[in-house]
Amino acid sequence: MIEDDLEYATLDYQREKRRGFPEVVFGAGKTPLQVTEIMVRLAASHAGNILATRCTAEHYEAVKQQLPQASFDEVSRLVFLRRTEKESGLVAVLAAGTSDIPVAEEAALTAMLLGAKVERLYDVGVSGLHRLLSRTDLLQKAKALVVAAGMEGALASVAGGLTAAPVIAVPTSIGYGASFGGLAALLAMLNSCCSGVAVVNIDNGFGAGYMAAIINRQSVGE
Amino acid sequence: MIEDDLEYATLDYQREKRRGFPEVVFGAGKTPLQVTEIMVRLAASHAGNILATRCTAEHYEAVKQQLPQASFDEVSRLVFLRRTEKESGLVAVLAAGTSDIPVAEEAALTAMLLGAKVERLYDVGVSGLHRLLSRTDLLQKAKALVVAAGMEGALASVAGGLTAAPVIAVPTSIGYGASFGGLAALLAMLNSCCSGVAVVNIDNGFGAGYMAAIINRQSVGE
Amino acid sequence: MIEDDLEYATLDYQREKRRGFPEVVFGAGKTPLQVTEIMVRLAASHAGNILATRCTAEHYEAVKQQLPQASFDEVSRLVFLRRTEKESGLVAVLAAGTSDIPVAEEAALTAMLLGAKVERLYDVGVSGLHRLLSRTDLLQKAKALVVAAGMEGALASVAGGLTAAPVIAVPTSIGYGASFGGLAALLAMLNSCCSGVAVVNIDNGFGAGYMAAIINRQSVGE
Amino acid sequence: MIEDDLEYATLDYQREKRRGFPEVVFGAGKTPLQVTEIMVRLAASHAGNILATRCTAEHYEAVKQQLPQASFDEVSRLVFLRRTEKESGLVAVLAAGTSDIPVAEEAALTAMLLGAKVERLYDVGVSGLHRLLSRTDLLQKAKALVVAAGMEGALASVAGGLTAAPVIAVPTSIGYGASFGGLAALLAMLNSCCSGVAVVNIDNGFGAGYMAAIINRQSVGE
Amino acid sequence: MIEDDLEYATLDYQREKRRGFPEVVFGAGKTPLQVTEIMVRLAASHAGNILATRCTAEHYEAVKQQLPQASFDEVSRLVFLRRTEKESGLVAVLAAGTSDIPVAEEAALTAMLLGAKVERLYDVGVSGLHRLLSRTDLLQKAKALVVAAGMEGALASVAGGLTAAPVIAVPTSIGYGASFGGLAALLAMLNSCCSGVAVVNIDNGFGAGYMAAIINRQSVGE
Amino acid sequence: MIEDDLEYATLDYQREKRRGFPEVVFGAGKTPLQVTEIMVRLAASHAGNILATRCTAEHYEAVKQQLPQASFDEVSRLVFLRRTEKESGLVAVLAAGTSDIPVAEEAALTAMLLGAKVERLYDVGVSGLHRLLSRTDLLQKAKALVVAAGMEGALASVAGGLTAAPVIAVPTSIGYGASFGGLAALLAMLNSCCSGVAVVNIDNGFGAGYMAAIINRQSVGE
Amino acid sequence: MIEDDLEYATLDYQREKRRGFPEVVFGAGKTPLQVTEIMVRLAASHAGNILATRCTAEHYEAVKQQLPQASFDEVSRLVFLRRTEKESGLVAVLAAGTSDIPVAEEAALTAMLLGAKVERLYDVGVSGLHRLLSRTDLLQKAKALVVAAGMEGALASVAGGLTAAPVIAVPTSIGYGASFGGLAALLAMLNSCCSGVAVVNIDNGFGAGYMAAIINRQSVGE
Amino acid sequence: MIEDDLEYATLDYQREKRRGFPEVVFGAGKTPLQVTEIMVRLAASHAGNILATRCTAEHYEAVKQQLPQASFDEVSRLVFLRRTEKESGLVAVLAAGTSDIPVAEEAALTAMLLGAKVERLYDVGVSGLHRLLSRTDLLQKAKALVVAAGMEGALASVAGGLTAAPVIAVPTSIGYGASFGGLAALLAMLNSCCSGVAVVNIDNGFGAGYMAAIINRQSVGE
Repeated sequence: MIEDDLEYATLDYQREKRRGFPEVVFGAGKTPLQVTEIMVRLAASHAGNILATRCTAEHYEAVKQQLPQASFDEVSRLVFLRRTEKESGLVAVLAAGTSDIPVAEEAALTAMLLGAKVERLYDVGVSGLHRLLSRTDLLQKAKALVVAAGMEGALASVAGGLTAAPVIAVPTSIGYGASFGGLAALLAMLNSCCSGVAVVNIDNGFGAGYMAAIINRQSVGE
Repeated sequence: MIEDDLEYATLDYQREKRRGFPEVVFGAGKTPLQVTEIMVRLAASHAGNILATRCTAEHYEAVKQQLPQASFDEVSRLVFLRRTEKESGLVAVLAAGTSDIPVAEEAALTAMLLGAKVERLYDVGVSGLHRLLSRTDLLQKAKALVVAAGMEGALASVAGGLTAAPVIAVPTSIGYGASFGGLAALLAMLNSCCSGVAVVNIDNGFGAGYMAAIINRQSVGE
Repeated sequence: MIEDDLEYATLDYQREKRRGFPEVVFGAGKTPLQVTEIMVRLAASHAGNILATRCTAEHYEAVKQQLPQASFDEVSRLVFLRRTEKESGLVAVLAAGTSDIPVAEEAALTAMLLGAKVERLYDVGVSGLHRLLSRTDLLQKAKALVVAAGMEGALASVAGGLTAAPVIAVPTSIGYGASFGGLAALLAMLNSCCSGVAVVNIDNGFGAGYMAAIINRQSVGE
Repeated sequence: MIEDDLEYATLDYQREKRRGFPEVVFGAGKTPLQVTEIMVRLAASHAGNILATRCTAEHYEAVKQQLPQASFDEVSRLVFLRRTEKESGLVAVLAAGTSDIPVAEEAALTAMLLGAKVERLYDVGVSGLHRLLSRTDLLQKAKALVVAAGMEGALASVAGGLTAAPVIAVPTSIGYGASFGGLAALLAMLNSCCSGVAVVNIDNGFGAGYMAAIINRQSVGE
Repeated sequence: MIEDDLEYATLDYQREKRRGFPEVVFGAGKTPLQVTEIMVRLAASHAGNILATRCTAEHYEAVKQQLPQASFDEVSRLVFLRRTEKESGLVAVLAAGTSDIPVAEEAALTAMLLGAKVERLYDVGVSGLHRLLSRTDLLQKAKALVVAAGMEGALASVAGGLTAAPVIAVPTSIGYGASFGGLAALLAMLNSCCSGVAVVNIDNGFGAGYMAAIINRQSVGE
Repeated sequence: MIEDDLEYATLDYQREKRRGFPEVVFGAGKTPLQVTEIMVRLAASHAGNILATRCTAEHYEAVKQQLPQASFDEVSRLVFLRRTEKESGLVAVLAAGTSDIPVAEEAALTAMLLGAKVERLYDVGVSGLHRLLSRTDLLQKAKALVVAAGMEGALASVAGGLTAAPVIAVPTSIGYGASFGGLAALLAMLNSCCSGVAVVNIDNGFGAGYMAAIINRQSVGE
Repeated sequence: MIEDDLEYATLDYQREKRRGFPEVVFGAGKTPLQVTEIMVRLAASHAGNILATRCTAEHYEAVKQQLPQASFDEVSRLVFLRRTEKESGLVAVLAAGTSDIPVAEEAALTAMLLGAKVERLYDVGVSGLHRLLSRTDLLQKAKALVVAAGMEGALASVAGGLTAAPVIAVPTSIGYGASFGGLAALLAMLNSCCSGVAVVNIDNGFGAGYMAAIINRQSVGE
Repeated sequence: MIEDDLEYATLDYQREKRRGFPEVVFGAGKTPLQVTEIMVRLAASHAGNILATRCTAEHYEAVKQQLPQASFDEVSRLVFLRRTEKESGLVAVLAAGTSDIPVAEEAALTAMLLGAKVERLYDVGVSGLHRLLSRTDLLQKAKALVVAAGMEGALASVAGGLTAAPVIAVPTSIGYGASFGGLAALLAMLNSCCSGVAVVNIDNGFGAGYMAAIINRQSVGE
């Protein structure tokens, strides 16, 4: 079976073969029933971890009825079925401030579910540099960095300058006024004076974690 | 010697040790003399390839006086000193249209000078899909893709859906009217429905090539 | 009678003669009573289908009191009186993702009420091209395509490249962060590299369906 | 032969079969030699009219060397080879002001080369309505309207209210200050209170003419 | 007494002398008590009409306790004390659609309270021109026009072309998607091809009515 | 004769009857020959002053050949034929800085040619208030004010607070960086805390002068 | 102890030594428990005043349990522990309108807690200049001015022109329509024609008060 | 004499008394003759240094005819008359990259001419932190910092975290693509996570130097 038409979704069962991981469910805008039906079908047709992003407790309640082993992480809003414990390589996930943690956690958990060993480094914003400089060793051991930062987004450039690994910068919508919902951080990261930095959408912790995980996977020779 | 103060520049001789490649010279806004002086110092203190971006023929004329082996590529506007021939792994560089080629070439040449084997796939925009689909094999062998596209920037999502490798999307300023100097392509790429895509600044072929090269290098175990 | 002044509305009874269809009621910002009064007057003065867009259940409850044959479609938010069953030609309505379906349905239902035969093709986003390519026949038989897509809006260009029919692209506000409420998809569609694509306002499923229906009507010689 | 790889372009010889017209050359950013080579190949492999947009006199000089029958229209910047005289149906092309004429002419000439009979109605801006109202007959006979307008772009809504035909609105970059290069007209047209209006990119006369021509072609049963 | 310091407001008792009308209270963001205290002081120190804008029923309840003759108009959200019945000259207030009426009413009532005779012309959007053209006489008798319109804002240019009087255009936030909260209408009005049109802030019915009233007052020689 | 079709323009000979002044020629984007032909026709069919805006010396040279009495003002870029000397009422034209003078002069000369007596008050920016306060008498005698200001555009609010007359604010594109071509001044003027201020397009001195002139004309009972 | 890792925060105990004041807690997005834990640790390790911004009554209730001497100011949303009464120098805090007072109070209270004597001057918008001019003495005695203004933000330039002290301008989000959430005031202040004005983020009363306080502190020789 | 009316300028001779420094001439948009006349008058009526910004060599040639002691600095584009050698306190001027130096020099020279001792720290961008960290002593001795940076503007936050002095951040227009002419750096600086940072307009080196100089002057007790 290559695809399977629900009325509202056309599942892509060959994605794992083509892209290395099965489809991930984007929960926002889907009903609990829809998320559940899709996860059940993915769980039945794949052996590995299954993941749905931007879920609420209501999504989780519905999924748990059908997939009792499913877990829900409130901070990152992920519903997932962890069926493999493998963690290899190293992805370092940084958050500039306490408020950036939900996005960072979405990245960290995503990368872990896709097989990466993850280490976190939170509240290391650039106005107190010693907090970051004391962990330079971690930055240099990682195969990929995820940097989540709102406001002026400067952490991506500073951390990038301390490592040879590729940096995935994820701007967050944290801030007010002229942060314009994360636009300031997004533009800052796109204009990074540091080579080796690429950017994903505002608040897209999942995308950053996914990108870091596939780089990490290639880097450990899988 | 850790750094060296010219009046107008503070060179960072330890960058190669810290980041894996020596500093790259951003030629725009520097005089031919400044670019020359910096390249001479970098060439004297490093053994590998040396690279200056966004250069003009005037820059090249000045550099060639001091570094006769230097080359200039008019399309990509790079001045460079190629001293190692090593090419490993595989970076695929795609351009949606003929007008996107200068940015794609900046990426391709950068990745090559940083040690990657590079293959090009140009004028494969999404309104004529067969041109891309006939080359799926290449997309699946690559360790990293660079996708340069202006206008609606759709090629990044489409190519990303055909590969397991990370995709570095570089929007170009090609277009007119509501392309707003590349903004349309930039936003499209940031909103890609395809996981495994990250974005660099508009027209930043260098940055895309650099990012692809470090991913490629890690992926071949260097 | 050419026009009829309610205190809050100046009805345009000659519109059907001048434009081929009677006036359509824009429900947003009108009270249930206002929508009802206008629909009653349009129903009394025209023989064909009558349509109100962006309605709520409250609008429908009020309309049903006066026009018991009226229907309400919750997904597309249309209240309508279907009095002719005619369906001719073919309009294909595509949605890139599950979340784009409400806008696509507004287009599909509108086109049907204006006399078109409609076929739907949903969840065929460009990161899994085979879902679209397997339906090329439909794209080539249609007299007009409506393509509803949020995020990067790439489906309009890809689908447009597979058909000779005119494509009406309708960006949706689906997405987050740098989608800026549908702006990213809007700009992408305006910059389509594919000829034969024109664009309506963000989330304007009605407008897309209307445009497709008048093209379809002309194309079947009515 | 399905495609043909020049170094800088991948021609799409099947486009005529798939889309009803052969590929059109976008001249901006291509050298005179590139435009010439592509036009020569298209002319050799197709029987109908051949068209290149956004050309300069330099492009034309080069093309004429190889294709002596080619013509150049300075106002619309089109280089073309007219080999069929067929004109059927009716496309009405409107321009709000004198300065909008180049964009309107690009649409008009494109539609004509794609087989439509074209009538022009220029300098009929909405602050002097009688100029437009006196030509209502033309608006009602047309199979499609192209409306080119800069500044506040109101002509699309006003003309649309006087016809049953689909309206292709093309905002122009005419204006200054808060016209922001055509953005004001673009937004106005996207927000038209008139159903049956769809929009193409700023200054995209070619796209408007193409869209009008394919609607016109379908409407005369070809 | 020139001014009077409440803790939160510095009243400007000489404004009537200097500017021709007393201060008007901006209710939004003020508590019911604050609005009441300011209106009481203005009522005590001036003989004419007193006006507070952007008020809620709660504001009115509080004001009525102290000023029992005060009135509240729910549509325009004005609380006012009408003490002079004088109405001279003529201000015509136009609204493009039903949804624009609240802004138009704020303008109409403001102009009336400032001494103008007002006539209303509502739901006369440009896609059905005959509704406006049948009232050209009114447009030509008025001393000033207020034109409230959202969406594409075209009514200002069309109405302006039919009168010799100055037109005050007030864009409304009516619309969705690419109306961007009234920005589309604002830009359209600023770019009007019609001379004799000036613009106030989005939804600023008060400002438009005030401007029209002072022009009207001067024009009848007061 | 109601209208007269040149190939590129549809003249509106009844405009003077309908709107109180004949058509004004917008010179930008028209050839010297076009401006000349239109001015000659307007001069032949009207008795009063004739005006063309945004002209260059080349336009003037061509016009002078046919209309030797025509004048050219280099600062305001107006070409005009002054045939009536009448100046009534009073329009005060203010400029915040030296660089705003060209826009202010376009307003001043326009108002004069349309029959207003004009007084100028230049370089009276708000950071040196005494320059403006010493001329309060003029502000209070005027029937209308034009205020031209770039940068932060504050002069409109400050001057408006000192007069009972209507204020036409014209933002200029003077400034750099975050003035964004006059956007900062435009937004400031639209958000004026001062009632009785309305705004025209950036750099639209002509529009401001026209609006002031028609208000002034009405105010002196013409 | 240099830093102290809570799970969600990395405190920076050396900040007072390095920057002259201890860390300030940004309450928005932190739970009551988090704010309390951080304030308790800061209170234990520093002798001076402790401050948390953007707090709610819930934050205060939690903090008061652990730090009974803490205060809460509802208008400015500050929770603070005042342990030193010292007030030196002079910071003048201006607010253009009543609605700007919360932001002004955040600045005033912050400056006071950081050791400055503060005087307030509220509701002194530029459309009634006499209210400001009568207090010129205060503006000239101050060591620093904070100017909070929304809408057109003109007060910063006007006040700046009356003092030799540095002006910290803080745009507020007060306004509607084209104020775009404070953007209009922000741009106006950045474009001030008055030297000696610098700007902080929209609604950033804390930042303005902090900047004024450190300037004031230096100016009194501390 | 309080003011002096040239035709194009209203000089403000009391500014030095009111604001501590005489008026500074903004050269952009003024003719060489105008700059000369104003400088001559300022030189005659004040004893201290005289300064004109944004001048060209042509301005300087004209000024030198009348004021032979005048100097011109090509990098910062300042024409000035240095008549006092006093330099007190300390202003540190930082530039992130070589291309930011012209803006930094405008600040440095301005501060010096206004009486400050200035030290420069150039090419210390955040991707090579050691260059900045090695100069922490200077940052801590300064009475005010000016930080000029384009691209992502991160240097302001990083430098601000290392000093107790107020930081004046000046975004530069250096960069391309999504730097949008300095907007990215401007937004980043406004959103700095570091307290004690305020911002001036893009490329406004003069404004930053002026602000720093008045803070420095107050801080040394002048």
